[in-house]
Order: sequence, then C-alpha cells, then structure tokens
Amino acid sequence: MSFEILSKDNKKIKYVKKLVCNGNFLKKEKNFVVEGFRLCKDAYLNNVIIKELYYTDDAIKKFSDKLEEIINYAKNSYKISEDILKSISATKTPQGILCVCEKLDKHFSMNTINNVGKFILLENIQDPANMGTILRTSEALGINFVVLSSGCCDIYNAKVLRASMGAIFRVNVLFCDDICKVIKDLQGKNIKTYATVPDSSAKSILDVDLKENAAVVIGNEGNGLSQSVIEVCDEKITIPMLSCAESLNAAMAAGIFMWEMMRGSRE
Amino acid sequence: MSFEILSKDNKKIKYVKKLVCNGNFLKKEKNFVVEGFRLCKDAYLNNVIIKELYYTDDAIKKFSDKLEEIINYAKNSYKISEDILKSISATKTPQGILCVCEKLDKHFSMNTINNVGKFILLENIQDPANMGTILRTSEALGINFVVLSSGCCDIYNAKVLRASMGAIFRVNVLFCDDICKVIKDLQGKNIKTYATVPDSSAKSILDVDLKENAAVVIGNEGNGLSQSVIEVCDEKITIPMLSCAESLNAAMAAGIFMWEMMRGSRE
Repeated sequence: MSFEILSKDNKKIKYVKKLVCNGNFLKKEKNFVVEGFRLCKDAYLNNVIIKELYYTDDAIKKFSDKLEEIINYAKNSYKISEDILKSISATKTPQGILCVCEKLDKHFSMNTINNVGKFILLENIQDPANMGTILRTSEALGINFVVLSSGCCDIYNAKVLRASMGAIFRVNVLFCDDICKVIKDLQGKNIKTYATVPDSSAKSILDVDLKENAAVVIGNEGNGLSQSVIEVCDEKITIPMLSCAESLNAAMAAGIFMWEMMRGSRE
Repeated sequence: MSFEILSKDNKKIKYVKKLVCNGNFLKKEKNFVVEGFRLCKDAYLNNVIIKELYYTDDAIKKFSDKLEEIINYAKNSYKISEDILKSISATKTPQGILCVCEKLDKHFSMNTINNVGKFILLENIQDPANMGTILRTSEALGINFVVLSSGCCDIYNAKVLRASMGAIFRVNVLFCDDICKVIKDLQGKNIKTYATVPDSSAKSILDVDLKENAAVVIGNEGNGLSQSVIEVCDEKITIPMLSCAESLNAAMAAGIFMWEMMRGSRE
C-alpha cells in the first residue's frame, strides 16, 4: 500500500530527518536511513527489512518497474514531493528515493563465527569514508568477518553507507565491546592474530602467511593501534615502505593487508 | 620581514580567499594555498617557494621556533587575526598558519623521465580525496612518476593537498595533454603499459611482472578507462575479486597495483 505525505511537519518525515541529521539519535534507534536508488535496491536484494520507503514522482518515471518491486517489498511506502525529500536528504542532489530500514543484529559472539576464515578487526576507525572503503574492499577481497571496536564510527552513517557501495548489507560486520577479548577468543580457536604497525622493526607482510585462519587488526587513523592490542596479538606486522613516507592512509593499509590475505589463497 | 594585516579587505587577503574559494581561478593562477602547520612545514622542507606566509598570534605560541624557521624562509610574512584567518581558510578549525606557494613546473616531457622506473598514469581521476590518497600511497610505495591526464582534478585543491599528506611536494607528478601519446612514448622506451579494468577476462595481476619498467593506467571512478587508452596499452590487467562485488574504489585499486609494483622488487 502506498500513501502520499504532503507536509514536512508529518511526524514520519520529522523522524527521518532526525535520523539523518542527529548522529546520537541514529546510534540509539533500531532503524537507519538508506538513500538513493542503488543503495535502496541493494537493501531490498539483501533482504534488509525496509520499514518505510519514500519516493517522488520523478523517481517513478526514472526507475519505473524496478522501483515498483521495492515499493511492493517495503512494509510501507509513501509518495512525497521533491521539496520534502530535499528537506530530509543528506545529499545535495537526492535521487528521489530513500528508505528507513531496520538495523541488522551484528553483535559479536564466538558462536556466530566459523573456526576457519579471514578476519579484519578495526580499532577505532573514525573516518566514515575510510570505514565505507574498508567494508567495500573486504567484500571484494573475500574477508569473512569484519569486527569493529566500540570506538569505531557508526556504520549506519550516510557517508559510510555510500562509500561501502552496499557492502554493509553483504559483509559479516560484527560489533564488539572488548577487542582484546575478541583477539584472545580467536587465538583460542587457533586463529593467528596480527597487529599492524607503521614500524620498520615489525615483521614484513611479505614474511608472514596470511592465507587462512588469520586476523589482522587495523588501528585508528591518527594514533594507530592501542598498546594493549599490540601486546595481546601474536605478532606485529608492517607494510614495507620507503623511509621518507610516514605511513599509509588507514583504509589503504587495510586494503593492502586484505589483498595479501586474498593473494595467498590465490597463488 | 614580517608585517601585520588588519583588514579582511586588504587585497592580499582577498587574493588568498579567491584562490581558496574559486577553483577556476586557482587553476589559472601560478600560485596555490597551503594550510596548516604540517603542510606548510612540508612545503618549506621540500624547497617549495613560499611567496606569502600568514600566521596568527596563537600559531606563534603553539609552534614557536619551528614557525620562525618558516617565517624566515618565506619571501613575505604577515601576522593576521584569528578572524581574518577564518575568513580565508578552507577548514572549519584553521591551525593558525597558511601560505601562498608557487606552483611547481610539472609538465610531462619524455626528457624529464628516466628510462627505467615505475609509472602510474591516472586518466580523469575526479575525486580530490582519491587523488590525494593515490599520491600519498605512490610516495610510500616508491612509484617514480605519477602522470595525470588533463581531465584529472586539480592537485592544488585543498582536499588533495590534505589527503596527500604533503606527498605532492615530493612525488614526481607530471601533467600531460594526451595520455595515449604518453603511453606510446613509454612503449618506445621499452616500458610495458597496462590498462587496469574491473573485468575478470583480463589477465590477473598475479600473472604479470610489474617489478620494473612498468606503467599502470588507472581510470575514472565512475567510467573506468576510456576505450582508446585500453586499446593503446600492451595488456589489460585486473585484480581478482569475488564475483558479487562490482569493483574496488579507484584509489584502493591504484594502491593494490602500486603495492604489487613494489612487492615484486622486494621479494
């Protein structure tokens, strides 16, 4: 069933706006907002629960049948004006479609993971573009689990969703409260854990076997990994660089580590 | 010599503001603006000509001796108020220092390059953060030359400078008008040229030797490489990915190719 909402003061519209504009509110709610045709379609194709879908006349003309499929899938759909859409969109040029989805249950538990696999652990990655890029890359390179410390930025942030290109709906992303405990749990399952550091005294990535049963831990953009994480990991590893450069961008470093994890199983 | 500028209407201040706010003006001018202590210091350490340095009282307290070195190096220095700095800064929380530098001569010519080396060619990379990340990574991974097509974004853009972490002052960045001609010129010097495509029918990056005398061409974020570039290159190569993922972010793909170029010479 599809209805029309005519006013910006409608309480559903106000709720969407609050989710989009207020990061703290977004964090506490069980819902998040997905914008644009491609991402909304991704949510639908990946069986994310779409509680409310908002679309404009223009979107119907532009996406026709494909939009209708999503309208039918969504629990509720509402036609809104271009003007209302602009008032609730996080982008300057909205694509005529936006939906409110239910967040996925992604809490880390050793029961949810297999013994074998490729793990990326992120400690306090703060930049949404970095987070989105890491998720997108982890999907492309076949990482089985991405575990996020509680200090990471919100994965339901609009910038993360955009940069992830929908990978967030497909990658096994798990939240944890205590990353050191997760590292120990993984070690208990014979998964080797690696702390990544921009430090030439650490073991070169070329001298370790990241093929299987490996967990690579990536640190914060400015501060790197915390000392406690470095200490609990089995080994410190690094990407060999020219001496004049200080470090790689966190997402880029993560990508190269993930590539090496995939590379090993391809050779 | 150091003077004080007291008004936002000063024509030097207006000039800086125009460079910061007007991308087309910046493109035509021979100068560009560098912001923040770290980047200004990088410009100084890399012998970039600093025509004008602007700093606040706060910056003197914060950076003292180190700032004085840069003040002495700059051709002209001006103390300004926090208020004036904010009016010309591209960032919300300026660091009390900003300078106007002379652009480097970076036009591509076969005479400026060696026969041997690692080349990255960028065709129409548009996103400033991607451009900056690619430059930063190319420095860390020892790429000898980064050649930019005329359709790339302006490397003197503030976002590029920030994301490059000063690599722009140290990497050999060269502009070219005709990227296909550059590819042919490189082939004439026995440098093998590779078109990168997100296409599983292309040769896997694991089956080519990118160690030396290789030029890898990266395409635009949305459209990839143009057909004419693909046709003129010696070979099409790709990063093997899982089938469900469409592609990697352009900077990430570039980074993995650069890593493979470095990896070969480290093994």
